[in-house]
Amino acid sequence: MPIVQISMIQGRTPEMKEKLIKKVTDAIVEALQISADKVRIILNEVPKENIGYGGVPLSKMDS
Amino acid sequence: MPIVQISMIQGRTPEMKEKLIKKVTDAIVEALQISADKVRIILNEVPKENIGYGGVPLSKMDS
Amino acid sequence: MPIVQISMIQGRTPEMKEKLIKKVTDAIVEALQISADKVRIILNEVPKENIGYGGVPLSKMDS
Amino acid sequence: MPIVQISMIQGRTPEMKEKLIKKVTDAIVEALQISADKVRIILNEVPKENIGYGGVPLSKMDS
Amino acid sequence: MPIVQISMIQGRTPEMKEKLIKKVTDAIVEALQISADKVRIILNEVPKENIGYGGVPLSKMDS
Amino acid sequence: MPIVQISMIQGRTPEMKEKLIKKVTDAIVEALQISADKVRIILNEVPKENIGYGGVPLSKMDS
Repeated sequence: MPIVQISMIQGRTPEMKEKLIKKVTDAIVEALQISADKVRIILNEVPKENIGYGGVPLSKMDS
Repeated sequence: MPIVQISMIQGRTPEMKEKLIKKVTDAIVEALQISADKVRIILNEVPKENIGYGGVPLSKMDS
Repeated sequence: MPIVQISMIQGRTPEMKEKLIKKVTDAIVEALQISADKVRIILNEVPKENIGYGGVPLSKMDS
Repeated sequence: MPIVQISMIQGRTPEMKEKLIKKVTDAIVEALQISADKVRIILNEVPKENIGYGGVPLSKMDS
Repeated sequence: MPIVQISMIQGRTPEMKEKLIKKVTDAIVEALQISADKVRIILNEVPKENIGYGGVPLSKMDS
Repeated sequence: MPIVQISMIQGRTPEMKEKLIKKVTDAIVEALQISADKVRIILNEVPKENIGYGGVPLSKMDS
């Protein structure tokens, strides 16, 4: 613990995801005063057609 | 808020998923008396072999 | 399946939650053409201080 | 109910996943004294680059 | 990893929850051939009025 | 999007939780190059007896 799940739009590069994991872990370590090795993160990449905003798929909002 | 996650069997068409997002958003708007733009929906499509019912994968119940 | 989790601000009445469960189930039944008894819903009620919008707890945005 | 979600590294064989569903269901049935048909399991397979341990993607810890 | 979340009806005793954690961990260890210290479990206890089955809160199905 | 859920041991002060929300949001903004108002965070506080590590509730590991 803590266990973090981040749902986000599919398609970031491995480099961006690595940076995200590093920075979010650092943020939690600083805010909660725990050691980094306690932090688990799972990135959940979601295609735009599976995300709804105000009743509309995100894939339809781009067009 | 609200944030809705719907886990369901993989393979619905984009049209069905769009309809699902629309109808579930409308239902929440009506029940909670909030505006539609506050509702976020994530569809989590799961392959049948990753779903267990009564100890058996759904992929084995179809055969 | 489907399994639905709805995270929302804590404090709705039992009547509102009952209406929410009914309406969201109906919406899924209509959109996916499945029977209602397949739909499971979990309401996750979250206190405002545990919800962040743009970096600020919702409890601070009301004041 | 109960509804179980298991997030794990992507890539187990269908046979291992079937065994996992069977054994976890049996464990819950025995511990909670309920019937197996009440147990729903969802396996969430996650690629290594989407899992963070101590601020580092699991894909980088293998190399 | 693996990370397991079990959503269940609120109100089991600490002894039942301890047994559940033990047995589910053992099941995963055996099925996936990993060591027990890799398994994280979170129990999510849900009040009956927040659980919907077929469009009806579980709290209403008991009466 | 992104939507972040952080499961952690119950009992942090409102000030710590506010700091956590702020710092994690900042980290995501920086890593993904998005605006802060797109980030939603939900803190899920879990009692120690509902957390399992290696088959044992966290409440038993403290004693």
